[in-house]
Amino acid sequence: MKINQNYLDLKNSYLFSTVAKKISAYKEANPDKKVIRMDIGDVTLPLCGAVVTALRKAVEDMSQKETFRGYGPEQGYDFLREAIAGYYAKIGVALSADEIFVSDGAKSDIGNMLDLFDRDNNVLIPDPVYPVYRDTNIMAGRRISFIEANAGNNFLPMPDQAGSADIIYLCSPNNPTGAVYSHEQLKSWVDYANGRGAVIFFDAAYESFVGEAALPRSIFEIPGAETCAVEFCSFSKTAGFTGTRCGYTVVPHALVCGETKLRDMWLRRQTTKFNGVPYIVQRAAEAVFTPEGLFETRKNIAYYMENGKLIAKTMRELGITFVGGETSPYIWMQCGMDSWDYFDMLLERANVTGTPGAGFGRAGEGYFRLTAFGTQEATAEAMERMKALKKIDPAF
Amino acid sequence: MKINQNYLDLKNSYLFSTVAKKISAYKEANPDKKVIRMDIGDVTLPLCGAVVTALRKAVEDMSQKETFRGYGPEQGYDFLREAIAGYYAKIGVALSADEIFVSDGAKSDIGNMLDLFDRDNNVLIPDPVYPVYRDTNIMAGRRISFIEANAGNNFLPMPDQAGSADIIYLCSPNNPTGAVYSHEQLKSWVDYANGRGAVIFFDAAYESFVGEAALPRSIFEIPGAETCAVEFCSFSKTAGFTGTRCGYTVVPHALVCGETKLRDMWLRRQTTKFNGVPYIVQRAAEAVFTPEGLFETRKNIAYYMENGKLIAKTMRELGITFVGGETSPYIWMQCGMDSWDYFDMLLERANVTGTPGAGFGRAGEGYFRLTAFGTQEATAEAMERMKALKKIDPAF
Repeated sequence: MKINQNYLDLKNSYLFSTVAKKISAYKEANPDKKVIRMDIGDVTLPLCGAVVTALRKAVEDMSQKETFRGYGPEQGYDFLREAIAGYYAKIGVALSADEIFVSDGAKSDIGNMLDLFDRDNNVLIPDPVYPVYRDTNIMAGRRISFIEANAGNNFLPMPDQAGSADIIYLCSPNNPTGAVYSHEQLKSWVDYANGRGAVIFFDAAYESFVGEAALPRSIFEIPGAETCAVEFCSFSKTAGFTGTRCGYTVVPHALVCGETKLRDMWLRRQTTKFNGVPYIVQRAAEAVFTPEGLFETRKNIAYYMENGKLIAKTMRELGITFVGGETSPYIWMQCGMDSWDYFDMLLERANVTGTPGAGFGRAGEGYFRLTAFGTQEATAEAMERMKALKKIDPAF
Repeated sequence: MKINQNYLDLKNSYLFSTVAKKISAYKEANPDKKVIRMDIGDVTLPLCGAVVTALRKAVEDMSQKETFRGYGPEQGYDFLREAIAGYYAKIGVALSADEIFVSDGAKSDIGNMLDLFDRDNNVLIPDPVYPVYRDTNIMAGRRISFIEANAGNNFLPMPDQAGSADIIYLCSPNNPTGAVYSHEQLKSWVDYANGRGAVIFFDAAYESFVGEAALPRSIFEIPGAETCAVEFCSFSKTAGFTGTRCGYTVVPHALVCGETKLRDMWLRRQTTKFNGVPYIVQRAAEAVFTPEGLFETRKNIAYYMENGKLIAKTMRELGITFVGGETSPYIWMQCGMDSWDYFDMLLERANVTGTPGAGFGRAGEGYFRLTAFGTQEATAEAMERMKALKKIDPAF
């Protein structure tokens, strides 16, 4: 056998596991300290009532011969795909249910979508970035270029007309920076991609944090996106499904390469290498789109957004340069030192954790990511600790 | 963008969807006929009591802040990995929990495992075969050789010492033939693989149908398998999880290529492109290994095995040559004509369906697959219809 040698080019340790190990070691050495975690972007509120009710009912369905479900369609049950199409319709995006593919999460689909592409493609990835974009392309041995998100471009890099990208990753609201593209900015990316026959992988996992702001929640709000974009979305943050596992990917009929529809290729990939999402989980996801489910999940999002606002307010009070927090669940703050040093310092002196910017790429050095997914009590306490630290040590 | 051109080499239609379309068309034209489906291998009994109880409790866990679970380990919770290790220990196979990876099903893992291998490998696949083995390798553009399972080798092909296989697929009990390898036969395969540095992809999805027979249920019962084999297994057939989605894959520490552990590569693949199985589903799977769960799932397996025995008995009565049915849920019968013609004939004249052997590969022509996963009432009725047909038309 010959292994895929590209795996040897991957860095061994995964960002979040390094962070987790450092925290474990600190806690072991300091069992009396109460550490507040603002590093990994995991939700803390339980599943909402509408979802729990749907889960209970679906479990009973599975317990009776008459209502039991075996294999379902790999691409998801119609009841869920139609509910998702209805959700898009509300923001003015017309999709047919067969352009929507239900999956176990955006992370799986973002990785697996690359199966459809030749190794010989130029990949353009923002820096800093969700490490999955980079690592999945290293695994396939593709050429990667990075485009910096920095204070100079308000953390929203724009296309370089001289560039040669074939596969372009965009994430808005962004992980890790929290920055959100405007309609006009996304239009430039769509025009660029259409102009050169490139495809945009649009990660919309944080779309529900845009709230009432006049910012795009889907790439398909942009005219022309249907011929150049695939969109990945998830119930993880929208409805607290990080441990329940459900997402969806949109591959429009109009997205073609030569005469081949990417939608048909993805269907073939999923029917061959995937067997669908649990029936009970699909019923839970369906409940997110009921009036009760929408009300309850929006209430939960509002809860986290209060955290985001409080963190942003604190950053302003402390005179720290930052982006995000108001239409996104992440706050990207300038830490004024090596980001792993800042991690260690904040953990030791304030017992607060975040994620070092350097873990998201070279351009992340000097920055630090805080998440709004904690409890309101813990978030408020963490902000008080950061203020207290600043009082003692103005250099912080 | 450049697409993966290998996808264009795939046949467009998936075997089971063609079968489903033919059945739909027949039912539409003949709404008064009661069609008995013995084609797709889907279970019909609902989830057992122990599993339902675990699901109910897990749903409540997810509804409360104190017991809610967000992201879990991508490779599965320890409680489930340890339960699976305990299950292997009962058949004398010692595995550590970190060699076991929980997933959403064997189909996903069988497809995704190929990520770890270079395109430049010779793949050896039995014919007839579960189409996923073939199609996933066509997608990656690998060289495929087929090894025939036929009456001459009792449908259990053995290694060809002159061959040059790097990746070898074995499935026992077999889908579609129902044939089961002995310990001695698997030992020959293990020795062959170790002798030439090949890897065996062992599909054990039907292991629980071996029952009390003195036949291997895991490749790891064979000395030496730990240095050459990966095993895929699933709760789909063992516990009726086809719509609940959980499986597991074993990658031993001892399986290396040069200095690289395949187990470490798979961990890297799964942590990068997968986010784990729903917490509630893992709790359900854990319950399968409790005394109550084992008792109940074995009772269900016994129910299906009664069907297998009845079909085998009927085949003998009808003088039809066949394999499987007694230690496997599939019966592979000689149909004495083109297998799609036999499908049409059986559907029209007996209102019974099966899967045409040709759909599983060239060597499947002239054969037909029946499954034991129906209800006992429907299976008995189908056998009566086949007997009646034989009386009218001895050529059948």
